[in-house]
Amino acid sequence: MDYQKILENVLIKMTGFQELGNPASYIPELRKVDPFKFGVHLITKKNKNFGLGDSEEKFSIQSISKVLSLVMAYQLQDEDLWKRVGVEPSGTPFNSLIQLEYDQGIPRNPFINAGALVICDILVEHLKNPKDEFLNFVRKLSGNSELEYCARISESEKSVGYRNAALINLMKDLGNIHNDIDTVLDFYFNLCSIEMTCRELARTFLFLASYGLNPITKEKILSSSKAKRVNAIMQLCGFYDEAGEFSFKVGLPGKSGVGGGIVAILPNQYSIVVWSPGLNKKGNSSKGMKFLELFTSETESSIF
Amino acid sequence: MDYQKILENVLIKMTGFQELGNPASYIPELRKVDPFKFGVHLITKKNKNFGLGDSEEKFSIQSISKVLSLVMAYQLQDEDLWKRVGVEPSGTPFNSLIQLEYDQGIPRNPFINAGALVICDILVEHLKNPKDEFLNFVRKLSGNSELEYCARISESEKSVGYRNAALINLMKDLGNIHNDIDTVLDFYFNLCSIEMTCRELARTFLFLASYGLNPITKEKILSSSKAKRVNAIMQLCGFYDEAGEFSFKVGLPGKSGVGGGIVAILPNQYSIVVWSPGLNKKGNSSKGMKFLELFTSETESSIF
Amino acid sequence: MDYQKILENVLIKMTGFQELGNPASYIPELRKVDPFKFGVHLITKKNKNFGLGDSEEKFSIQSISKVLSLVMAYQLQDEDLWKRVGVEPSGTPFNSLIQLEYDQGIPRNPFINAGALVICDILVEHLKNPKDEFLNFVRKLSGNSELEYCARISESEKSVGYRNAALINLMKDLGNIHNDIDTVLDFYFNLCSIEMTCRELARTFLFLASYGLNPITKEKILSSSKAKRVNAIMQLCGFYDEAGEFSFKVGLPGKSGVGGGIVAILPNQYSIVVWSPGLNKKGNSSKGMKFLELFTSETESSIF
Amino acid sequence: MDYQKILENVLIKMTGFQELGNPASYIPELRKVDPFKFGVHLITKKNKNFGLGDSEEKFSIQSISKVLSLVMAYQLQDEDLWKRVGVEPSGTPFNSLIQLEYDQGIPRNPFINAGALVICDILVEHLKNPKDEFLNFVRKLSGNSELEYCARISESEKSVGYRNAALINLMKDLGNIHNDIDTVLDFYFNLCSIEMTCRELARTFLFLASYGLNPITKEKILSSSKAKRVNAIMQLCGFYDEAGEFSFKVGLPGKSGVGGGIVAILPNQYSIVVWSPGLNKKGNSSKGMKFLELFTSETESSIF
Repeated sequence: MDYQKILENVLIKMTGFQELGNPASYIPELRKVDPFKFGVHLITKKNKNFGLGDSEEKFSIQSISKVLSLVMAYQLQDEDLWKRVGVEPSGTPFNSLIQLEYDQGIPRNPFINAGALVICDILVEHLKNPKDEFLNFVRKLSGNSELEYCARISESEKSVGYRNAALINLMKDLGNIHNDIDTVLDFYFNLCSIEMTCRELARTFLFLASYGLNPITKEKILSSSKAKRVNAIMQLCGFYDEAGEFSFKVGLPGKSGVGGGIVAILPNQYSIVVWSPGLNKKGNSSKGMKFLELFTSETESSIF
Repeated sequence: MDYQKILENVLIKMTGFQELGNPASYIPELRKVDPFKFGVHLITKKNKNFGLGDSEEKFSIQSISKVLSLVMAYQLQDEDLWKRVGVEPSGTPFNSLIQLEYDQGIPRNPFINAGALVICDILVEHLKNPKDEFLNFVRKLSGNSELEYCARISESEKSVGYRNAALINLMKDLGNIHNDIDTVLDFYFNLCSIEMTCRELARTFLFLASYGLNPITKEKILSSSKAKRVNAIMQLCGFYDEAGEFSFKVGLPGKSGVGGGIVAILPNQYSIVVWSPGLNKKGNSSKGMKFLELFTSETESSIF
Repeated sequence: MDYQKILENVLIKMTGFQELGNPASYIPELRKVDPFKFGVHLITKKNKNFGLGDSEEKFSIQSISKVLSLVMAYQLQDEDLWKRVGVEPSGTPFNSLIQLEYDQGIPRNPFINAGALVICDILVEHLKNPKDEFLNFVRKLSGNSELEYCARISESEKSVGYRNAALINLMKDLGNIHNDIDTVLDFYFNLCSIEMTCRELARTFLFLASYGLNPITKEKILSSSKAKRVNAIMQLCGFYDEAGEFSFKVGLPGKSGVGGGIVAILPNQYSIVVWSPGLNKKGNSSKGMKFLELFTSETESSIF
Repeated sequence: MDYQKILENVLIKMTGFQELGNPASYIPELRKVDPFKFGVHLITKKNKNFGLGDSEEKFSIQSISKVLSLVMAYQLQDEDLWKRVGVEPSGTPFNSLIQLEYDQGIPRNPFINAGALVICDILVEHLKNPKDEFLNFVRKLSGNSELEYCARISESEKSVGYRNAALINLMKDLGNIHNDIDTVLDFYFNLCSIEMTCRELARTFLFLASYGLNPITKEKILSSSKAKRVNAIMQLCGFYDEAGEFSFKVGLPGKSGVGGGIVAILPNQYSIVVWSPGLNKKGNSSKGMKFLELFTSETESSIF
């Protein structure tokens, strides 16, 4: 398919779409971003690359990193992982304490904040230098060996991270956090602070469009079965309280972040990343959702 | 693929699987079923049929009918439908009143009881003889013009249907039920009472494996886009509080019923129905889930 | 004390109090009431009577009747009563289904709608002609043998009573309603429909200011211990989600109704009823609450 | 009244009461207490003292201190206090996060942990040396100038205080904590660690039985109106999820602590403290509740 042409056509169709949304405002670092930024990058299994707009500009990947930490933990723990975190959609806003208390400290899935904190706790438990090892893991996947955590962002998040502190303390109380709270939180805030371009991020996720094999480096990241399971979790839990909406309209497994990025996967075909900082009420990129909806309609590439 | 052979191989692998579960017991009619019954039927887009076990024996399809009523309402209402019912997973047990009250009478999706009641209310609003027209619709899809509602089952359910009466009264109070409560409940209990064989049910759902077109009669049931959306909703909401588990392990859109039936769809390929009356704790067929897990592993037919 | 003088003084102090509130509007019959009506009547243990304003005009006592049905059930059942309904404040709006589902069908207390429905179910179980016997009970207490249920009001409530139907169906499902739902609902809507004057209502409740003995007829309605317990329940649960506010500001056990009536008790001294149809956001008479606050400050008659 | 005689009689009646309960076990320091300890002390407005059993032995007053911190904050803030904490019973277990999230960070009342933390935050805001000033306040009230915080207890609580850390972080996120979290928590854990005898504690609370005036020192602690309001809050919120039960059976305003102490007030008459470390399922002293129930029956001293 001539993806370049299609990306352009979809962009033209976007012209009338006025819902800019607002960049995340809870930390100053995210608020500063130019809301008119827009980038998209698609990479195929065969390493064909197609980009548009600000696709080579770095943005904060935020919650998208939760997929990467899950993948790393899944490498280390196999199916035992699921004793400490579920695979069900949460049905409540992404940071709610209610469900967590009801479920006795077992988060519904690894993409709500509570679940991502448990995954961090597992990594802290199994790795010698979690921050270094995670960074190396992402560097290799992305093909950019100079990726860094962004201290401005992580410090900024930490300074207002009371809700996450509430979550982790509650889980510690309920027995589902095994390490020192501050260590886990520090790791968590660093993960979310990584900055990448659309191009880098699309490449990073390509192995999930390729049954767990990085088609560029030929490295096996996850078994085929595990890669499918990660995609399944993205499908059901990747968009806070809008996973149904995304499945319904876009029809691909994916994950969003409050930095305005969305990654989506068409199994056996491609990985696509779109970035636009304005968020809708549910916290997902407003233009990004729309672009992917039009794009998958145009290419008829829903998994359904 | 030689599906007959594969079905048999999977059955052999099931030998050691001891979790029989228990048939639904809340109404006498369901409790009576022999828990050792087991049937499976697969039908391909090209109308190739493969069956095993009790695949030609009728069972109560129960909640699986909620997909069919949704399809009929979607034919009548287009996207306006979604003003009265959502497309998000519920995150709480399937009959909970809590979420409904929190969301002001708008059910999370059309497959929880509350949502199915709203769909019934819409059909009662738009159809002259809802019960007749629905039955005709299912007869045509199934290829069996003699299907009937089962009065024993529907009366039995009605006699203990206090929870559904609570749901519909609450929604009436909140303004999301427009017709007479007893009429809607009567329709609802009838829908769920239809009895079909695995073979009939697999054929009934075949159009969802074929982008909305019934490949046998060539009738267009839904547009391609709508058919994909129904599949997406099944993926996210088709298994009560176990949708994640089913996506994770089976990887296909599907729907279960407390009669022990499960239907699953591999888009562009086949529709498969498995029936085994014993239910797990979440209310889904215990053996049915396992069979489909092994079957999709064997055939590598996950959508992910 | 010269209560007549004090009532007048307090009324003068009320001059500047502008929060009229709005009469209950969910049924036409209540909406029609003149919002400027205001009456108050105090009766002492020694049968001294003091009234002001529209104190001899009838109004719909609504939920205040829940105390009377509780008293009747308490006469019949002793402490076994509390197996089916609690004595704890509800902490959520008065008609919420959430707490009820959480507590498996046992209402928190007899004054939330769910609890009052259980009390009605108990009376239906124990009495031959519940409606007649209840009416006779209230007639005797009030000293007015011509009191009647108001069919206009009860029919009007029944026609929009979906929320109560939801509650009773849920409890039936959970096993805490033993009789036919329609019979219990009919009884319930009748209880709430009684109309009384401030004077009649104050006299009706006088036995609770007199340790269970009707000081006028010398009839023992409840043992001293039970009468105190009813007062305790009123103190903790008598004002929907504003019991704390009422205790805090007024300091007497009492009960309100959406008809705008409030009854309050100073043990061993008096029973007072104030009526003003305008309700605050929590559903309690706005002027009534304020009047009682000023009255108990003036007379220093808090139980605390 | 010959209170000494009555205390003894009630103790005799207790003989058959077998429900010892279990001392609080979440921190080692509380678990160590001898469960057979039992003490009671009553002090009248006229400074007559009556004691029995281990009434001169120190125990950890725990949550009872929340009344004292409330009183101190009420001295400083008047009715503005209630903008940051409510006066309604909570209707859920004492440490639940659910209600707090639902109510946007405003705790239901000052006696649930969240509310007590807000009160501590207010004291930290207004006082130069909150810990010293609070201690002096309690020393003066108790008549024992050598009272101390117990470092063993407060350190022990802090080491497992994840739930309280979750609460305060959530409220910080929601804007209802103004000071440094660690400072407020440290103050909070110290308050709860004070150890007193039944005799000292009864004297400490005597001003609440005397309309705000300490009848021994003649010092005005609170205005009469404020003292009544504190009693009203104790009545509605003083016993976790058992306030209704306590009102119902004992009929006095009071407050319990997980150390096994209970203080209760008969306005204008006396303050009584009973101590027995075994707790019932709701976290209140099992024997203490029973003793007070029998005592108020015997003396007919319910406020109702």
